[in-house]
Amino acid sequence: MKKVSLLAPGPTPVPPRTLLAMAQPLIHHRSADFADIFGQVRAGLKKLFQTDNEVLTFCSSGTGAMESAVANLLSPGDKAIAVKGGKFGERWSLLLKAYGCQPVDVDVPWGRAVAPGLIQDMLKKDKSIKAVYVQALETSTGVDHPIKDLAQVTKGTDTVLVVDAVSALGAYPIPVDEWGIDVVVAGSQKAMMMPPGLAFASLGPKALKMMEKSTCPKFYFSWAKELKSQKDNKGAFTSPVTLFMGLIDVFQLMDEIGMPAIFAETAAKSRAFKQAVTAWGLKLYSQDNPSPALTAVQCPEGVDGQKVVKWLKDKYAIFIAGGQDQAKGKIFRVAHMGYINEFDTLQAISAIEMALQGLGYSFSLGSGVAAAQKVFGEA
Amino acid sequence: MKKVSLLAPGPTPVPPRTLLAMAQPLIHHRSADFADIFGQVRAGLKKLFQTDNEVLTFCSSGTGAMESAVANLLSPGDKAIAVKGGKFGERWSLLLKAYGCQPVDVDVPWGRAVAPGLIQDMLKKDKSIKAVYVQALETSTGVDHPIKDLAQVTKGTDTVLVVDAVSALGAYPIPVDEWGIDVVVAGSQKAMMMPPGLAFASLGPKALKMMEKSTCPKFYFSWAKELKSQKDNKGAFTSPVTLFMGLIDVFQLMDEIGMPAIFAETAAKSRAFKQAVTAWGLKLYSQDNPSPALTAVQCPEGVDGQKVVKWLKDKYAIFIAGGQDQAKGKIFRVAHMGYINEFDTLQAISAIEMALQGLGYSFSLGSGVAAAQKVFGEA
Repeated sequence: MKKVSLLAPGPTPVPPRTLLAMAQPLIHHRSADFADIFGQVRAGLKKLFQTDNEVLTFCSSGTGAMESAVANLLSPGDKAIAVKGGKFGERWSLLLKAYGCQPVDVDVPWGRAVAPGLIQDMLKKDKSIKAVYVQALETSTGVDHPIKDLAQVTKGTDTVLVVDAVSALGAYPIPVDEWGIDVVVAGSQKAMMMPPGLAFASLGPKALKMMEKSTCPKFYFSWAKELKSQKDNKGAFTSPVTLFMGLIDVFQLMDEIGMPAIFAETAAKSRAFKQAVTAWGLKLYSQDNPSPALTAVQCPEGVDGQKVVKWLKDKYAIFIAGGQDQAKGKIFRVAHMGYINEFDTLQAISAIEMALQGLGYSFSLGSGVAAAQKVFGEA
Repeated sequence: MKKVSLLAPGPTPVPPRTLLAMAQPLIHHRSADFADIFGQVRAGLKKLFQTDNEVLTFCSSGTGAMESAVANLLSPGDKAIAVKGGKFGERWSLLLKAYGCQPVDVDVPWGRAVAPGLIQDMLKKDKSIKAVYVQALETSTGVDHPIKDLAQVTKGTDTVLVVDAVSALGAYPIPVDEWGIDVVVAGSQKAMMMPPGLAFASLGPKALKMMEKSTCPKFYFSWAKELKSQKDNKGAFTSPVTLFMGLIDVFQLMDEIGMPAIFAETAAKSRAFKQAVTAWGLKLYSQDNPSPALTAVQCPEGVDGQKVVKWLKDKYAIFIAGGQDQAKGKIFRVAHMGYINEFDTLQAISAIEMALQGLGYSFSLGSGVAAAQKVFGEA
């Protein structure tokens, strides 16, 4: 009997109660009842983003919200830094190019975090750099970039900091107002425990001011249009009603559990998993700031990461992720964010042990499970 | 006991079995199982659009797919006709402006259809017009534009015909290949019986050729990116997995019922409703080609259309639509597309009769119900 188990960094499992909340009969997207739901979503987002800024909701994947943060802030020819420390950092650079902006690529070796001092020097030398685009968690490498420090760098300058927190928000604290992040982009299908289909962007005062001057074309992803509508608790275009119903349910769930407890649980799953990796005699791919939201494991000599992923998928219907582009075959990645508990984590550890053994790696079977159990026992 | 009843032109009710199909546990969007679902969606779309063209799926409202048909076909400065016969025709013009193109607005009085001869003359006089943007059903007026004839006009020219069929596709036949329509845009939340969240675009050979030269910025809505991915049964970005599960369920339902039967049922609901309007002594707002997908009713002297809508909503939890912009207060609109049957239609007729009487209009109570019953009895 194969039970599908999602432990890849998105989409993550959705709580059954949330799935059923989305199975309720549809209501009209211009009704008072839906406006009430929209209001709850706005309030829930502000709480999750720890901000008083307006947080806009889009019906799209996270990439749509990323695109909105280029199209609504910049004009063709504008210079902006793209921190390229992995696949998603590269996406910032591609988005900037797509809109005719000048990406200033900061190439960070995969597995490393960007140095805030480097960004500071660049901004000091070139005052024409309008924005810094970066990931909170670079999902392809498992590395957290130092967002708090980067926000210190851009604070007091005319440059805005735009953070892709699609994989990070809800997994660990990103206090938007306390740190002073101008724009944070998120998606529904990771730590937010929802299916894919919704994306979000929080807009700080500096970003709203820069928006006024932006001439890049936009319509569906227009912040101005959505700000006008969403402040009245409705979308500028037809909102995905069922996904909103799910979202207010997960916000209720988050309230019941409490975000500090969710952050602590995510951190414990991460510590447990990372102890298992050590017990196997393996190393993390993330040399700087390994994220609590996911773990990227460096494969041992002679073991192909893609084969580990395939083993779990084919033999046990367990989904983890392999490496992308230059990391392909070299790593595998396991998520700790969202509706995944300690036993899902132990299951993943156990399955990986069986795969590693099957693929010829020599280590003590059960050592990872025991190391993780120890962490969970103490948590 | 108030049972919510959706009879506005979108979102329409979703079959309970489809809602439950979407409540299944999530699967991974890069798995073989999801590729199988994606393949079924592609096949189902080709059948529904009656085309061999590739039909792309986007996670967005219908407006996103409309935007894609501007951003992927044109370049800044390009001229294109926008047939403005209502609120959604105006959207084409706004989209063209947003991308720096030159909209050639064809102002059609609300309630009227565009004359194909007029478009033909314009295209003959100005060979630089790259595209004609039009609605199949202009949802704000209940009018069907003559798409078959317009396709004859653009056939054999270098101009592409782009049809917004968001409210029309699945309500009555739009045989894309037989008529030769270059691009047809659709949405999930109307005749397709799905929640909002998915949008579609079919791309004919002329459109694909024009796409090669387009320099408007695009990323999330890039046809080239999605063509490359979707031909391999996957999205370029994270697909909204639960909505796809619903979509293959409604495609199964459509196969069980058969599209000819669905078209016939929609037409019968429309005839029945329109007979009721006549029985009340009222007129349609749509002077040309009243659509079978929805009916726009001109209010009698002294009755505010918004009050009819509010009466139904507040007293019976029945949702119909009012007029937009210049038609506001003058009309109300009732949908016949999607998962709405003859008794939903009779319920709407009956509720409207009670509202009209309550608002002081003098007519024979029950006359509309009887007229509609007669049509259903004969159907």
